[in-house]
Amino acid sequence: MNISQPPAPPLPPDLIAKFAAIVGERQALTSAADVTPYVTEERNLFHGRSPLVLRPGSTTEVSAICKLASEHRIALVPQGGNTGLVGGQTPHNGEVVVSLKRLDKIREIDTASNTMICEAGVVLQVAQQKAAEVDRLFPLSLGAEGSCTIGGNLSTNAGGTAALAYGVAREMALGLEVVLADGRVLNALSKLKKDNTGYDLRNLFIGAEGTLGIITAATLRLFPKPRAVETAFVGLKSPAQALKLLSIAQNEAAGTLTSFELLSQLAVDFSVRHGIDIRDPLAGKHPWYVLMELSSPRDDARAALEAILAQGLEEAIVDNAAIAANLSQRAAFWKLRDEMSAAQKPEGGSIKHDISVPVVAVPDFIEQADAAVVRLIPGARPVPFGHLGDGNIHYNVSQPIGGDTADFMSRWHEVNAVVFDIVLRMGGSISAEHGIGVLKRDELPEVKDKVAIELMRGIKAMLDPLGIMNPGKVL
Amino acid sequence: MNISQPPAPPLPPDLIAKFAAIVGERQALTSAADVTPYVTEERNLFHGRSPLVLRPGSTTEVSAICKLASEHRIALVPQGGNTGLVGGQTPHNGEVVVSLKRLDKIREIDTASNTMICEAGVVLQVAQQKAAEVDRLFPLSLGAEGSCTIGGNLSTNAGGTAALAYGVAREMALGLEVVLADGRVLNALSKLKKDNTGYDLRNLFIGAEGTLGIITAATLRLFPKPRAVETAFVGLKSPAQALKLLSIAQNEAAGTLTSFELLSQLAVDFSVRHGIDIRDPLAGKHPWYVLMELSSPRDDARAALEAILAQGLEEAIVDNAAIAANLSQRAAFWKLRDEMSAAQKPEGGSIKHDISVPVVAVPDFIEQADAAVVRLIPGARPVPFGHLGDGNIHYNVSQPIGGDTADFMSRWHEVNAVVFDIVLRMGGSISAEHGIGVLKRDELPEVKDKVAIELMRGIKAMLDPLGIMNPGKVL
Repeated sequence: MNISQPPAPPLPPDLIAKFAAIVGERQALTSAADVTPYVTEERNLFHGRSPLVLRPGSTTEVSAICKLASEHRIALVPQGGNTGLVGGQTPHNGEVVVSLKRLDKIREIDTASNTMICEAGVVLQVAQQKAAEVDRLFPLSLGAEGSCTIGGNLSTNAGGTAALAYGVAREMALGLEVVLADGRVLNALSKLKKDNTGYDLRNLFIGAEGTLGIITAATLRLFPKPRAVETAFVGLKSPAQALKLLSIAQNEAAGTLTSFELLSQLAVDFSVRHGIDIRDPLAGKHPWYVLMELSSPRDDARAALEAILAQGLEEAIVDNAAIAANLSQRAAFWKLRDEMSAAQKPEGGSIKHDISVPVVAVPDFIEQADAAVVRLIPGARPVPFGHLGDGNIHYNVSQPIGGDTADFMSRWHEVNAVVFDIVLRMGGSISAEHGIGVLKRDELPEVKDKVAIELMRGIKAMLDPLGIMNPGKVL
Repeated sequence: MNISQPPAPPLPPDLIAKFAAIVGERQALTSAADVTPYVTEERNLFHGRSPLVLRPGSTTEVSAICKLASEHRIALVPQGGNTGLVGGQTPHNGEVVVSLKRLDKIREIDTASNTMICEAGVVLQVAQQKAAEVDRLFPLSLGAEGSCTIGGNLSTNAGGTAALAYGVAREMALGLEVVLADGRVLNALSKLKKDNTGYDLRNLFIGAEGTLGIITAATLRLFPKPRAVETAFVGLKSPAQALKLLSIAQNEAAGTLTSFELLSQLAVDFSVRHGIDIRDPLAGKHPWYVLMELSSPRDDARAALEAILAQGLEEAIVDNAAIAANLSQRAAFWKLRDEMSAAQKPEGGSIKHDISVPVVAVPDFIEQADAAVVRLIPGARPVPFGHLGDGNIHYNVSQPIGGDTADFMSRWHEVNAVVFDIVLRMGGSISAEHGIGVLKRDELPEVKDKVAIELMRGIKAMLDPLGIMNPGKVL
């Protein structure tokens, strides 16, 4: 993908040496072989280049890097697990990469306050495991959890499959430690649930994609570990029926309804066709599916799930349903869901959208978007799936069968335009959980409130007057 | 209370006429009788003065007021229900008051998306009632709910008794409409649960106490209405025991544990002594009490509450407990709690703190603060109570019996100093839910991270370069 941006001037060798002195020679990577993993992303959609990858081992080192970068006006790209989907973590124009992976300590776990202080480089799955070891839940969960990091999760305000009950990443951080562009360290690692002493700075940095500062640590909230988790795979006729089922489920299960994923038939088909050891849990085919999960501190989740499904059957909303009988069946249901992005690859080109609309508008959105996309590209195959309970749909479109992949992919922005148009008319968002990065940067001014853009520019200018923090991203 | 601040210059009559033309003569109050209710607060702790109270009826009028104020550099004090406890809503130096009370429309209720768009002047209790009418819960709940407004709740990031399960006000707003100092209108009335298109502006204005702009409307989250609410009043030996009970309750009830209030014996005594129709639900006296409530979508709350109490009794944590047998008993339990602030008045002077510390540190905090306060003023009577589950204690101190009230009250800041010192050593906050206003403004730079203060000043300068928005508050 072509990223229009003035290239950074070459980095003088003496400056490379100065940066290297901060982190130590071994943690300053310059050879192509060492640098490559940090400048390419897994889907090969973005390719960057960088003269220098720094791997600091402490907040103090990050601070020294930013200070030196400020003095010499050197652009920095902070990076966590390098799993972002919008090119936000890639040095597109020869910036210095600051990898946070070595900041991987869990500084404290406090089970009475239900908090955990993680450094930015802690892998999400490690955070989940450490919480589980003290009989707690850290609920953030998403496809890349085996390699993405807490710092990246917060910088992109990650969502995932448990946001329905527990909220997005933003809602899981009580406090932050942030290194600013000039090297100052904001120490706001609060463990407090309530703190009304002045402006909320934490939320400025969460979701800012590293353009306002580098998150180096966070106080995360922990939750009681559910005793009972029950999962159902449901076949039904339409997104409108799924919305009715959601309403029944919310009334019955309230905060114990932890996932409610809407899956199109084609999304399920692709997973079954291309995934390994994946099968459809239901006998017949259904136009739409829902993957629903309840997590309860008591052993009442099964009864609640059965009550929801019974009401759904009675009201002719649910056509068929399977409840996972054990942990391995539950894992199989989720694998079907988790494979959906990967399973689109073998079907050729896929133009992706990560949109949200008000929950009530999801059925209309899918209907209108399907019609518009097929009108634009006859034979194109919409493969929508996502988090219905959050109004967040991954509206992906696979190329027509037998069509030319490059041709199809060249129409990425054209397809975006018709989809985003519908999203905006419904009061939706063109980036629900993936962020803006470079992928949607040029669309942002067109879709966002003008005053909001002005305020964002003001905040950027105040916090990063030299424009060295992840330049060209978001704004 | 003496508020040191340069007085605003007198407002020229032609400017008063221009402001009045925006809202209409009848909504521009200038006579002492009309103005008085807006410049005095209910406890008589703060007395302000103002030449003009404007009561706009629309966002457009608020925008015109701010534009005119900007052009002539006239200071504005936004005001909701005038129930704040830190002097944030009072015109201490002759500013123009902008009362939002006439912006009282509920613009939309969407039960499928579970959202409600309220204007700033909607009274909290009205918002609660309107949600209940469509079988939903708007969970924000606090003592002043009969008169405080949504705009004020958000501007102060109100907490209250249900924050344990549902979060503080910040977590209940999906979107905002804000009029900026220069009259620009930020239209961010999103109904989306997930929106990662750029910096989070909403949270800047929430909790900013009207110093960055005027919130004119908000999209609020609605929740399923609980089917079963069960309430217990528990006697126990110490805050440490209460903390153990909290842990049991969280494990058993998780998200259905909606309140967990810690009450000292003296706080209960004062309520019983001075409240009307209030009695202690338990037979014998106990050093400490917990008021605990579970709210469930199913009818399982009673069983869960009984299981929690049974485990508490078995482990010798709970000494005695009463479960409310019906709605009127439940109301009686809560009245005992809600009267606690008012019941301190007849006991003479009361020096108040609204602090939070990490939940685990609450027992230590109370022990150390009690000792320090009594060391400073022998005979002083600490009356702590508050939201243990949030680590938020209203650490109020009543004067010694028979002492001189004025003498005692003159030591407000001295008592603050010893209490805040302990709070800060524990990583706590000197304002958990009431805000900074003018009451704690001068303490803020001493207790807050220096970089945080610098960033707050930068944000203030960017959004309100003329310093006309609620000047002298927070910063």
